[in-house]
Amino acid sequence: MGNQTAYQSLTQTFQRLHRFGHLSAIASWDQAAMMPAKGNEARAAAQAELQVLMHQLITAPELKTQLDAAAQEELDAAQRANLREIGREWRQANLLPAALVEAKALAAARCEHAWRSQRKNNDWQGFLPNFREVLRLAREEATLLAEATGVSRYDALLDKYEPGMTSANLERIFGDVKTWLPGLIAQVRDKQSGERVIQPQGPFPVEKQRQLGLEAMGLLGFDFDGGRLDVSSHPFCGGVPEDVRITTRYRDDDFVQSLMGIVHETGHARYEQGLPRDWLSQPVGRARSMGIHESQSLSFEMQLGRSRGFLQLIAPLIRKHFGDQPAFDADNLARLYTRVQPGYIRVDADELCYPAHVILRFEIERALIDGEIEAEDVPALWDEKMMAYLGVDTRGNYRDGCLQDIHWTDTFGYFPSYTLGAMYAAQYFSVLRKQTPDLDSRIAKGDLAPVFDWLNANIWSQGSRWSTDELVARATGEALNPAHYRAHLEARYLG
Amino acid sequence: MGNQTAYQSLTQTFQRLHRFGHLSAIASWDQAAMMPAKGNEARAAAQAELQVLMHQLITAPELKTQLDAAAQEELDAAQRANLREIGREWRQANLLPAALVEAKALAAARCEHAWRSQRKNNDWQGFLPNFREVLRLAREEATLLAEATGVSRYDALLDKYEPGMTSANLERIFGDVKTWLPGLIAQVRDKQSGERVIQPQGPFPVEKQRQLGLEAMGLLGFDFDGGRLDVSSHPFCGGVPEDVRITTRYRDDDFVQSLMGIVHETGHARYEQGLPRDWLSQPVGRARSMGIHESQSLSFEMQLGRSRGFLQLIAPLIRKHFGDQPAFDADNLARLYTRVQPGYIRVDADELCYPAHVILRFEIERALIDGEIEAEDVPALWDEKMMAYLGVDTRGNYRDGCLQDIHWTDTFGYFPSYTLGAMYAAQYFSVLRKQTPDLDSRIAKGDLAPVFDWLNANIWSQGSRWSTDELVARATGEALNPAHYRAHLEARYLG
Repeated sequence: MGNQTAYQSLTQTFQRLHRFGHLSAIASWDQAAMMPAKGNEARAAAQAELQVLMHQLITAPELKTQLDAAAQEELDAAQRANLREIGREWRQANLLPAALVEAKALAAARCEHAWRSQRKNNDWQGFLPNFREVLRLAREEATLLAEATGVSRYDALLDKYEPGMTSANLERIFGDVKTWLPGLIAQVRDKQSGERVIQPQGPFPVEKQRQLGLEAMGLLGFDFDGGRLDVSSHPFCGGVPEDVRITTRYRDDDFVQSLMGIVHETGHARYEQGLPRDWLSQPVGRARSMGIHESQSLSFEMQLGRSRGFLQLIAPLIRKHFGDQPAFDADNLARLYTRVQPGYIRVDADELCYPAHVILRFEIERALIDGEIEAEDVPALWDEKMMAYLGVDTRGNYRDGCLQDIHWTDTFGYFPSYTLGAMYAAQYFSVLRKQTPDLDSRIAKGDLAPVFDWLNANIWSQGSRWSTDELVARATGEALNPAHYRAHLEARYLG
Repeated sequence: MGNQTAYQSLTQTFQRLHRFGHLSAIASWDQAAMMPAKGNEARAAAQAELQVLMHQLITAPELKTQLDAAAQEELDAAQRANLREIGREWRQANLLPAALVEAKALAAARCEHAWRSQRKNNDWQGFLPNFREVLRLAREEATLLAEATGVSRYDALLDKYEPGMTSANLERIFGDVKTWLPGLIAQVRDKQSGERVIQPQGPFPVEKQRQLGLEAMGLLGFDFDGGRLDVSSHPFCGGVPEDVRITTRYRDDDFVQSLMGIVHETGHARYEQGLPRDWLSQPVGRARSMGIHESQSLSFEMQLGRSRGFLQLIAPLIRKHFGDQPAFDADNLARLYTRVQPGYIRVDADELCYPAHVILRFEIERALIDGEIEAEDVPALWDEKMMAYLGVDTRGNYRDGCLQDIHWTDTFGYFPSYTLGAMYAAQYFSVLRKQTPDLDSRIAKGDLAPVFDWLNANIWSQGSRWSTDELVARATGEALNPAHYRAHLEARYLG
């Protein structure tokens, strides 16, 4: 040990953390996709025990000394970026006491597990006590992080998922969206009211949907030797970069949502599968931020998956599994996949209504964390904002309202990432389309290489080498510019 | 901490170990049943890291002091039994250096992963280098354990799975079996040569086999809220007592093997699901030994599953899934499931040939560990013993010979447990049939409670409260008596 540099000691500790994180990630996937109900208590205790251990490792006193010493050592640029990310993770963990970390893990597991049946049973009153406890602990965490860094409580949580982003910035960006989105939705709905859209006729057997999903993943370059597709009540991309586990859920009267859900998760998966292999055990080898992660899933789902070329490519596969129907014509698929129809459920929302769901959640969770409202205020606020932004009545319908998402059983500050991701994705494709003018015709022929190559070179292979702003500027010539997003929506929906 | 007894401190450490063991068990199940190939390296590293951590916990210097102090504390009988088992685990772990534990975990993962394809490819030469390394490390472990306890090297490994058992004792028991088994096999084959057995006509779609298996598990009282059935290349019972994961493998031209394989694993599962809930986090709450574990799977598979009553009960389920065939008559099923036919594969062997497979493996692994033979000697010895005991020619056929089992990628000293288990199971049922003279007719009616109640009261709920000899004597009035096994075989196959 005497011969190694402080930097090397740090990388060893973070490699251990990475390995324990591997077990935690696989156990989490299992919990959502495989575990029967009675396993929950023991699983939660085991996961909490591992969280405490990892917290002990990252708060060991010698890390402070090593971080100070490593800053003086001679490092190359990649190592220096890794040291920056190590420091970031170290600071975030060292601001939280072990007891809080353990309490959070236990409260989250309890809340999430109960939520699975409470959502089904529309049981907001049952959810509330668990949710209050989760919120209490999240505020405690936010206060500790905020006091140390001098930002607001919500910004302190936001920084975990979107380093560098602030609620002031989000309010500016989302405030702008709110000025034009309702008008655009109304205009598009008016335009679409004259369109004839043919609905696919079910049933669509789950096993056939699964086969279609697997083929779509294949087209999208998912590496099946390094990952799987399974089922969970809330679709996600989990596992580890070496073994990426994506999930979906099926309804046998509809394949349209599940298919595009798989395309979405495959975007996440390819980011993970494309992270720099030599750096996987280190913080610099991880995905840059949740917004950048969503920019990959939404590059796949919105930019690529809903493109004319891709729908032409996938129409024959749909026919292969479900027989020939007029609904499976690529033009009709395009109308189906761009149909604007305000509804209850965020994950089922169309591209145009989606940001309204996100802005609503951002506004509620910011107020919750900053202490402006309490847990019991959520349903009324939810109802009010759903009516204002989308004209949808959610009163008394918790199942399809504020109980619909898994996030608040454990996570606050994540929702903005979805719409930031949509904005980044639009910005990438604006560049990509300029660089590859025949992009759509190449996609229609099954040549997706221009998309994969661009994303791999500019995003996947870069891990956390750069700050989010630098990463996006290196890729597109400018930092986040929401104008590309608006232009993309107007071109697709009014063009 | 100052207020707690040494015993309490020990139980806390063992609870932590139990929780880490939970994650390791689920990750192991995942590795066998779910994980794609490219996940292996990272998984192996993560598992090894956890093994090292658990080894550090159980070798912490304060445990020695706590064990000495706890021996002087006032404990009730259950706590004293727990302290005895804690001491047993502590001694076994403390005799091994951390580097050896890590090297063993890595070598085992490498060997097992490669074995999956090497077995398929009949590639003994490819397997040999990994196997040599596994053997080298197993001998190193055996030497360390043997030096400390004054037994032979093989006995030191055997003690991990069968506390109290010795190779001298096994040689006596197996030596006796070898005096009558070949004659009995010959006599039964002669008797059966005049029997007409109708073979079921496939194909048997995998999904229907799975449904049938799930229904059989239901009949056998498997708690699906606390476990699952999946597929792996080598069937096993894994997971944790709160969430038991059993696996099987299917061939679409045969359901007979897979169905009884599921019955077998369900026996293991019910033992785990029936362990004393209040003691699950402690060593005294675990299964007594691997022989006792096999006695549960074989109580289900051989004593219950092949009984006339059970086959009458299950015949209608078979018809329900695969249609009506003359082969599905209970009398014919009984002939199918008691057909004696020496073959290559241990897990496919009939009840009468099975002990020959075990004795062969015991003799080879004992000689390997005691250093009388080397890794490269295995195929020739295998061929010779298969010919001598079963008249089967395995030359050049490694896939169906010495490469067939997963055990030697990692484990030596386990094989005797299978036949010890068969002997214990015969002994239990000899008592159970005396206590419940109408057992078969009750089973035929679907009333399996007498079996479950007896096993639960005498075995499952007892965990590791007693030594193996005490457990068996309390349950049956005597320690292991192989005469019951011989009597059972003669009654079933010659009666």
